[in-house]
Amino acid sequence: MATHVQVDAKPDAKLEAARAQWAARFTAAGVPIADFQEVTHSISRWAEWCQAWCERAAVHEEIGREALAAGHRLSAGHHLTTAAVCYHFAKFMFVEDIKQLRAAHNKAVECRTLALPHLQPPGERIEIPFEGKALAGNLRKPPGERRPPVVVIISGMDSCKEEQHYVEQVFLERGMATFSFDGPGQGEAEYDFPVRHDYEVPAGAVFGCMQSRSDLDGDRIGILGASMGGYYAPRVAAFDKRVKACIANGGAFSVIDNFDQRPQSLKDVYVLRTHSKTVEEAREKTRPFNLEGIARKITCPIMIIAATEDRITRWQDAERLSREVSGPATFLLIEGASHVASNRTYRHRTQCADWMAEHLGVPKR
Amino acid sequence: MATHVQVDAKPDAKLEAARAQWAARFTAAGVPIADFQEVTHSISRWAEWCQAWCERAAVHEEIGREALAAGHRLSAGHHLTTAAVCYHFAKFMFVEDIKQLRAAHNKAVECRTLALPHLQPPGERIEIPFEGKALAGNLRKPPGERRPPVVVIISGMDSCKEEQHYVEQVFLERGMATFSFDGPGQGEAEYDFPVRHDYEVPAGAVFGCMQSRSDLDGDRIGILGASMGGYYAPRVAAFDKRVKACIANGGAFSVIDNFDQRPQSLKDVYVLRTHSKTVEEAREKTRPFNLEGIARKITCPIMIIAATEDRITRWQDAERLSREVSGPATFLLIEGASHVASNRTYRHRTQCADWMAEHLGVPKR
Repeated sequence: MATHVQVDAKPDAKLEAARAQWAARFTAAGVPIADFQEVTHSISRWAEWCQAWCERAAVHEEIGREALAAGHRLSAGHHLTTAAVCYHFAKFMFVEDIKQLRAAHNKAVECRTLALPHLQPPGERIEIPFEGKALAGNLRKPPGERRPPVVVIISGMDSCKEEQHYVEQVFLERGMATFSFDGPGQGEAEYDFPVRHDYEVPAGAVFGCMQSRSDLDGDRIGILGASMGGYYAPRVAAFDKRVKACIANGGAFSVIDNFDQRPQSLKDVYVLRTHSKTVEEAREKTRPFNLEGIARKITCPIMIIAATEDRITRWQDAERLSREVSGPATFLLIEGASHVASNRTYRHRTQCADWMAEHLGVPKR
Repeated sequence: MATHVQVDAKPDAKLEAARAQWAARFTAAGVPIADFQEVTHSISRWAEWCQAWCERAAVHEEIGREALAAGHRLSAGHHLTTAAVCYHFAKFMFVEDIKQLRAAHNKAVECRTLALPHLQPPGERIEIPFEGKALAGNLRKPPGERRPPVVVIISGMDSCKEEQHYVEQVFLERGMATFSFDGPGQGEAEYDFPVRHDYEVPAGAVFGCMQSRSDLDGDRIGILGASMGGYYAPRVAAFDKRVKACIANGGAFSVIDNFDQRPQSLKDVYVLRTHSKTVEEAREKTRPFNLEGIARKITCPIMIIAATEDRITRWQDAERLSREVSGPATFLLIEGASHVASNRTYRHRTQCADWMAEHLGVPKR
């Protein structure tokens, strides 16, 4: 394997932005900070991004596989999860080369799937039939609970289920099951399905699956979505009353009204995941991603999180949502926080889990 | 509370070194990376260090206390632990103002002690009589084990028990109890006692306490030490045969032979914790910190970890130790790693725990 070493060349603009802005998100998802620093400084061009991260991911994968071979299952689960999230970040915004993107993505799924039975608590992969294909997700259940409620974790435009391990943990530790899945335009489903505004359709398929299981309490379903997932989650809560509590972090009330301010790199992601040819086409496709007239249909308790320094989605969108819902709303505006408050996880991560536990009837821990 | 904001002034040399070198250690111990970046860039002079970190620690403390008041015990334990480690890092190298150092330290101990009963698994504070005073430590036991073995975690010159939470976790998850304590020259004991080369004396008091408990298996004691603790641990293993397995990370074979290469900031820490007046006096006091003729007395299994890029302790010291012990030695030299391999935790943290479990007779997990 080639090894990238630190280079001194001035980075291109996209790489420079990545270095400056992504450390908090990556580390919150389990990437060691030294990996972030070393990988992002081992290259000078964004074009090298995917390969450099795959090489670092492979280090963790090798450690994980060795642990597995030695019978050190907990360690294997840990390192393979780190590998998966590194492979995920290799591809998450790397829209320039679909072949590389897909190879990295396959490895992310492979490593996380390999990790699942060895996690504490373990997980299982589920494939839910959907429009002639399937949606894949990972179910994990808290130990010692007979029929726990389940929190469905909804990703965004550039996240997917392999990024959610540490989000899952806080819910699991508090007695809730978690189901992180890839919906249309996300992760494993991004090739077959573009993103869609009526996310209640795929979410409904997921809820049906959750309710069919005797080991979960299908009458206590919560949902959590961040970034674009922060739009999807309220949309789902508005149309599907199986949702008993909803958390939306960093979501837009109207996606198109936030579109133009976004960086080109993110617009390129929209092109890919809306299955468009141009940014203009992608932009136009986001028009129905709008909670106008829909927010008022939300009657379940909702927790809405916004960040004062969010440059992707204006926090005022979240504030509007909190005013327009019909049910009880908790609005948490986090000072000094960037998009989805990755740099302020201590202001919302455990708080979300405690709030959700309360609304799903789980005793305090 | 005053709030530090980012300043553009050029940092002084000590602060600049801190920014460049400490991110991996801080985050490995539980400091959010955004806190590290923001706090270290909110000041321009090292003299502001302790206060700036105390202010950030207070943010976590407040969140923790609010969680506790709301009955969210797990969250309280988490945030108070983060507060404790931020207060710890406020003081760990801040030898210039003992009043500030001590105030920060008191808060670190207060927050971690407050967190203990709410951790998963919980912990309890123990004070062990020692030379007319006491040594304080935190005992945590793995859930569901009747008489688990115990791993005694030994800190170094600038670490203490409040920094060890995430080290404790990997052993606890694998069925071992942990006891992190402050020995002479460390944490709570640094005011009454200077560091001492014959660390088997305080360690012996600890082992006696562990063996007196019916809830621990005193015949299965392991020890782990990093940095100066990487000297202490082999020293203890050489003289106290109650030690059944020993891990030494980044320790010197001969401290004085590594002394001169060390940065002035660390030499100043030696002055404080050897209770000396000058660097020369402190240096001279380290002369007996030497495993010459002692390494061969080590008969238990030992795992020795060294880092190729260690600028504090030459890795060759570890290699020499591995050659001179009389028992089975596992020598792990980590490429690209700095002192105690904080930037390569994935190369040693779970590996240490799995190795220890094997040597303390705990089934693989």
